[in-house]
Amino acid sequence: MTNLATQAAIKHARAHRDDDLRDLFTLLSQPSISAQNIGVQECANLEEALLNDAGFSTRRLDAPGHPVIYGEWLGAAGKPTILFYGHYDVQPPDPLDLWQSDPFTPTIRDERIYCRGVADNKAQHFSHIAAVRHWLRANGSLPCNVKIMLEGEEEVGSPHLDTVVAAHKDLLAADFVYTSDGPVTDARYPEIVFGVRGLLYVELFATGANRDLHSGHWGGVAPNPILALSRLLQTMIDDQNRVLIDGFYDSVRQPTPGAKAAMDALPFDTVQTIGGIGLTEMVPPAERSYAERVMFQPTLNIAGITGGYSGPGSKTVLPAKASMKIDMRLVPDQTPDEIWEKIRAHVEKHGNGIEINRLDGGMLPSFTPVEHPLADIVRAAVAAGFGAKPISVPSAGGSLPDSVWTQTLGLPSFLVPYGAPEQANHSPNESYRLERLYQGIETSIHLIGLLGE
Amino acid sequence: MTNLATQAAIKHARAHRDDDLRDLFTLLSQPSISAQNIGVQECANLEEALLNDAGFSTRRLDAPGHPVIYGEWLGAAGKPTILFYGHYDVQPPDPLDLWQSDPFTPTIRDERIYCRGVADNKAQHFSHIAAVRHWLRANGSLPCNVKIMLEGEEEVGSPHLDTVVAAHKDLLAADFVYTSDGPVTDARYPEIVFGVRGLLYVELFATGANRDLHSGHWGGVAPNPILALSRLLQTMIDDQNRVLIDGFYDSVRQPTPGAKAAMDALPFDTVQTIGGIGLTEMVPPAERSYAERVMFQPTLNIAGITGGYSGPGSKTVLPAKASMKIDMRLVPDQTPDEIWEKIRAHVEKHGNGIEINRLDGGMLPSFTPVEHPLADIVRAAVAAGFGAKPISVPSAGGSLPDSVWTQTLGLPSFLVPYGAPEQANHSPNESYRLERLYQGIETSIHLIGLLGE
Repeated sequence: MTNLATQAAIKHARAHRDDDLRDLFTLLSQPSISAQNIGVQECANLEEALLNDAGFSTRRLDAPGHPVIYGEWLGAAGKPTILFYGHYDVQPPDPLDLWQSDPFTPTIRDERIYCRGVADNKAQHFSHIAAVRHWLRANGSLPCNVKIMLEGEEEVGSPHLDTVVAAHKDLLAADFVYTSDGPVTDARYPEIVFGVRGLLYVELFATGANRDLHSGHWGGVAPNPILALSRLLQTMIDDQNRVLIDGFYDSVRQPTPGAKAAMDALPFDTVQTIGGIGLTEMVPPAERSYAERVMFQPTLNIAGITGGYSGPGSKTVLPAKASMKIDMRLVPDQTPDEIWEKIRAHVEKHGNGIEINRLDGGMLPSFTPVEHPLADIVRAAVAAGFGAKPISVPSAGGSLPDSVWTQTLGLPSFLVPYGAPEQANHSPNESYRLERLYQGIETSIHLIGLLGE
Repeated sequence: MTNLATQAAIKHARAHRDDDLRDLFTLLSQPSISAQNIGVQECANLEEALLNDAGFSTRRLDAPGHPVIYGEWLGAAGKPTILFYGHYDVQPPDPLDLWQSDPFTPTIRDERIYCRGVADNKAQHFSHIAAVRHWLRANGSLPCNVKIMLEGEEEVGSPHLDTVVAAHKDLLAADFVYTSDGPVTDARYPEIVFGVRGLLYVELFATGANRDLHSGHWGGVAPNPILALSRLLQTMIDDQNRVLIDGFYDSVRQPTPGAKAAMDALPFDTVQTIGGIGLTEMVPPAERSYAERVMFQPTLNIAGITGGYSGPGSKTVLPAKASMKIDMRLVPDQTPDEIWEKIRAHVEKHGNGIEINRLDGGMLPSFTPVEHPLADIVRAAVAAGFGAKPISVPSAGGSLPDSVWTQTLGLPSFLVPYGAPEQANHSPNESYRLERLYQGIETSIHLIGLLGE
């Protein structure tokens, strides 16, 4: 039973959809390409104005790089506090010739808004701002406290996010973090994600002779660096795809019963899932479900290898060098530092001189219990806003800097994608369904209402 | 003790070095780039005129592709017959800006002729033609029969050589084939090579999903084709570098005692040899000598591998495809057809769907016994021409279409490089020492003389 103030906010939202569209279009029309430093400052200014108009008091957080905007409405003493996170920067729109309308002229076709950045992430964090605005216009105050932080560097890897958050722990103190970004897995099901896997990325370099050699004069005499990498790889992973690096699984925490139950309840069909990539079966071990593999298992994936001649036809060369890239997805409580030490020691022991480098810092895995009391409130808000019971995904397969919330701030973090799979993030003709915009705004309105009860 | 007719031919050669240089320069000034079809016909005409001037009767052999020139002098009934082989086509001269003089303007500096194709192969087969000319001018006749075949497609892989030879077996009948091409291993030692290893070149293609995948969503679910290639490779070669393909060694013939003795007598220092490529030891097995490895052992070499992302930085991709190239050097009596069947069967059994393609036809190994009676005559000619006892290399490490002589014609074949290692075949500033030109001509003169005794 939705309370009266929430009902009033919803009513206000439905009566003012044109205002929301107009303000969202203003944001969308402003390019804010972080990788090329195009329009980022101008967009930050628009965001801040929008926050002020909605009723937030705002400031910029001290940070290197593009502006970090902070807004707050803290008039509900004693009530819970949400921290919304979003990003106002967008991907470059290239290739331009594949766009059906100008990438920075928001255009509605077939009940969708087409514009670079609409789904990733402007319409999604706009939904939270609009929810606050409708609440305040309809009711004069909020029943809980709301903070929001918008960064302008997500599309270039959030290089300063963790530092900024760590430097503003008190300011950002809240009961939980709520992020709407990316698409749900299946457009039929609203979705709440409770964690992400971590990441460690390494490069391996094998060296043989001091130059590429004639294979007839040196084959079977000089070391072949491709063979060396291959041999090392066989010491790292067995035929059941178990990682053989000493201690690799030591820190893996068993999923909680709730997380396991949530996983088992997911409505996805493995046969259909893997059929979409052209497969009829998964790699060993046969007994492990798709969901368990991507949610609760760490992996070691060979992302690339190169060495010798790979052009057309034949070249009888014994290459002097070969290299390989490996990414590892980590699960709680593995850390990139721990696994780096372990793989480094493994390569030192078994690599016969092969060098290993760590790329980037990696990412910590993050984890919020599906049994968390606040999760029920989030589920109820999503169910009310989208009109369907959300699924609970205990862990996303991929990696995001979600640990900035769960570890640096020590808060529960809920990832609630308002977008849908077909929205073409990062691609030409990125789009966002109008229906999902309105559903998202109403979900955020419900969230505020439910937290205040 | 050199006979009088040989002495007369040598004297004639020494008195007419300017004529030889003039005629060689005419050949050299004519570009004959088979890969680009530049000047090949014109050069064939010059070669034929040169052969006629020397005293050969000539014809063109029916053949697709660039002209094959045949010459003969058969006035020594009952005496042995030499078949000389050479090629008049040359590599493209690029990169032009690295040449110190025009690549097709023969230029003498520091007692060397600089010109594209001088070493590979114009000056070398010219030595045989000049030897016949000096013999005939000095003595009116030869004491043995001489045939010569010059092709214009060696630098593009001699695609029609075997067919042409097979179609002219009677015409090309001889007691042995004598080829001067390439450089000796060490400029201090004249060299006779008695065989080459064969070659089989294959490409392997591994496929996973129907497209490149996000490693976070699909790692540990979909097959990784790089891992698949690596696993297959481990079934093909063990840690002592022994090839594990069923029956791979079945046809390997033990070297004859003479071949083994010749190998043991080679004056090369393994430590120095491998030091030149920056190594202090060879790969296992430790007890096997360098010479034995490259002469009498077949090898399996990974010439190239590629899959996934190999650019700068990180990309978390699970690639859909990976490929690998392998060359195998074969020794008597292995054949490319036999080994192809064996590796194909191996990949079918162990490859888990990996595809294998054969590239080119491959090459048969060739072998002429170092104990062959004619070998002593060749050794004596080289010793007389170069003033030093030649070393006998039972097998070159690399691969050449030498089996066209030993198998298609069924003849002994002696490879007697007149060139030296520093001559920069295929590179800018290709050159040939004047001294080696004169030594080569005199070697061929001695060969004719010794065969007639």
